[in-house]
Amino acid sequence: MTTAHKTSTQPISHTAVKTTILTGDRATGPLHLGHYVGSLKQRVELQYTHDQTVLVADMQGLTDNANDPKKVSANILNVVADYLAVGIDPELTTICLQSQLPALAELTMYYSNVVSVARLERNPTVKTEIQSKGFGRSIPTGFLTYPISQAADITAFRATCVPVGDDQLPMLEQTNEIVRKINNLAGKEILVECEAMLSNASRLPSTDGKNKMSKSMGNAINLGASEKEIRQAVKSMYTDPNHLRIEDPGQIEGNIVFTYLDAFHPDQALVASLKEHYQAGGLGDGQTKKVLEACLLDMLSPIRQRRERYLADKGELIAVLRRGSEKARERTQKVLFDVRDVFGLNLF
Amino acid sequence: MTTAHKTSTQPISHTAVKTTILTGDRATGPLHLGHYVGSLKQRVELQYTHDQTVLVADMQGLTDNANDPKKVSANILNVVADYLAVGIDPELTTICLQSQLPALAELTMYYSNVVSVARLERNPTVKTEIQSKGFGRSIPTGFLTYPISQAADITAFRATCVPVGDDQLPMLEQTNEIVRKINNLAGKEILVECEAMLSNASRLPSTDGKNKMSKSMGNAINLGASEKEIRQAVKSMYTDPNHLRIEDPGQIEGNIVFTYLDAFHPDQALVASLKEHYQAGGLGDGQTKKVLEACLLDMLSPIRQRRERYLADKGELIAVLRRGSEKARERTQKVLFDVRDVFGLNLF
Repeated sequence: MTTAHKTSTQPISHTAVKTTILTGDRATGPLHLGHYVGSLKQRVELQYTHDQTVLVADMQGLTDNANDPKKVSANILNVVADYLAVGIDPELTTICLQSQLPALAELTMYYSNVVSVARLERNPTVKTEIQSKGFGRSIPTGFLTYPISQAADITAFRATCVPVGDDQLPMLEQTNEIVRKINNLAGKEILVECEAMLSNASRLPSTDGKNKMSKSMGNAINLGASEKEIRQAVKSMYTDPNHLRIEDPGQIEGNIVFTYLDAFHPDQALVASLKEHYQAGGLGDGQTKKVLEACLLDMLSPIRQRRERYLADKGELIAVLRRGSEKARERTQKVLFDVRDVFGLNLF
Repeated sequence: MTTAHKTSTQPISHTAVKTTILTGDRATGPLHLGHYVGSLKQRVELQYTHDQTVLVADMQGLTDNANDPKKVSANILNVVADYLAVGIDPELTTICLQSQLPALAELTMYYSNVVSVARLERNPTVKTEIQSKGFGRSIPTGFLTYPISQAADITAFRATCVPVGDDQLPMLEQTNEIVRKINNLAGKEILVECEAMLSNASRLPSTDGKNKMSKSMGNAINLGASEKEIRQAVKSMYTDPNHLRIEDPGQIEGNIVFTYLDAFHPDQALVASLKEHYQAGGLGDGQTKKVLEACLLDMLSPIRQRRERYLADKGELIAVLRRGSEKARERTQKVLFDVRDVFGLNLF
């Protein structure tokens, strides 16, 4: 099946200059507007100009959900449907499933031998996450070691570009440390270092304006949200708590309705005039919320419909994931071969 | 190639009752007389009555040798030649290479999520080894986590019987804990617990009588030792430091020459009379060493010759390892499938 790609009529030189991107999501819940602004939109654009792989990270999802594995398994196809619904095209982007790529687990094992436990414990992202999840010393081993597994993901695709938030920069540092160690052992460059592609979109706040967006917090609007859910979410959205009477001047900063209007409304001139009106006084939250509601309904309606159509045919979603995983498998096995070679283990 | 085994004419009921054994060696050096007494002899016997797999643990060997990978890669075929030379028969015993079985790395990843870091750090065997290797906090991650990898090895073959020294019992405890956790998640018994098969042979001391036998210490007699090496090793062997004159009574306890005579001499009546003579006085160390030397030369000569013949045809050694690994791969993939099922990840 994958050989068809090899017989492509595109000149090789064209393919060769494309920058390789690895990105992906933990399959622990359906994707929401935060993902849309922070990464999905960008992926749709990048797929035309880059060699892009999107990894559905089910193994990584399990590192802190082993006791509730359904949270991962039940969301794999949701995430794929989200991808397709927003316009990620499996003909342009390789969409693959982490657990279907044995090279990733094998590379993780090899890399584990060149990273000390102390180094893992110093990782600031892991430190913060351990605290926020309340793990303490009962942290699952897979969770402490997931930066190594992430390094395996990135290097297995020879990705040179990884779109991340700045909180994820320590992960790329760890990856590049491993790359240098392996290359050093090899005495030549067999793995490539990667660079962060920092998003220029600022992080979308949750609807309550307080916490990180998450399904369990009920403060996120999923891409597949129903009209009712969208209405409810907008209705309960955090605005300006001191804006008690319509005629009072209202504040834009920290007002989530305006943050979302900034992020999503197609007519930014209208948004600017609404802001002016709101700050001067005389514009009620009910009115601004109506504008946002209409805008989100408009934007999410075709995404929701496509998403539902995809989810109605799970066979096709699985086929997309299988084809992508087969392609990715071939690719990652080659890198595994090279790394195994460093350790002299390609006997047969 | 493996399908040929399925068409075996042996009645299934006969195969089914055989106890499954997993055993193996880290490929970090050629095997020596300590291995012979402690495990190899037993494996030769067990292969007729048990379903026995011997794993050449190259991945585990790398956990504390990543900076010197040749120490592992250069010894893989040595270890296989040692096996064949002592009589382990690849038709009866599956001899396979750890790095050729991706299911082992994948199972390690899944199991990592159900074992806490604190639990690993409590493992007494790992604690002792960390101390003896002087790792401190710079311990490689792969070394701290190798009990999980070992659990993957054991469970991937559904081994119920693992021949170990008593210092390895905490490893089997850890394995059975993982088995129970996975079965608990599954709601049924998909993995089997294992039991230790403790050797009734006492541990063979090193020739200097002091440390654990090891090639780097120069206190071990390898199975492939030349006549000269055997002579030298016996000559420098620790006896009774107070046995200064031949006519003095000598001590048997802690006298390595007698320990080796006990372990290897075919005529134990002769050994008994030598002991009596030695204790009474009048028997010199030179004479007891001559007896031991002759015995070891006799015993090791055919092993050395077979070993050399095997090593002269590396292609055949590789073929043995490849055939065994193919068989093992099929078997371990089935267990991986079952474990993946627990996590709901068999989408395709």
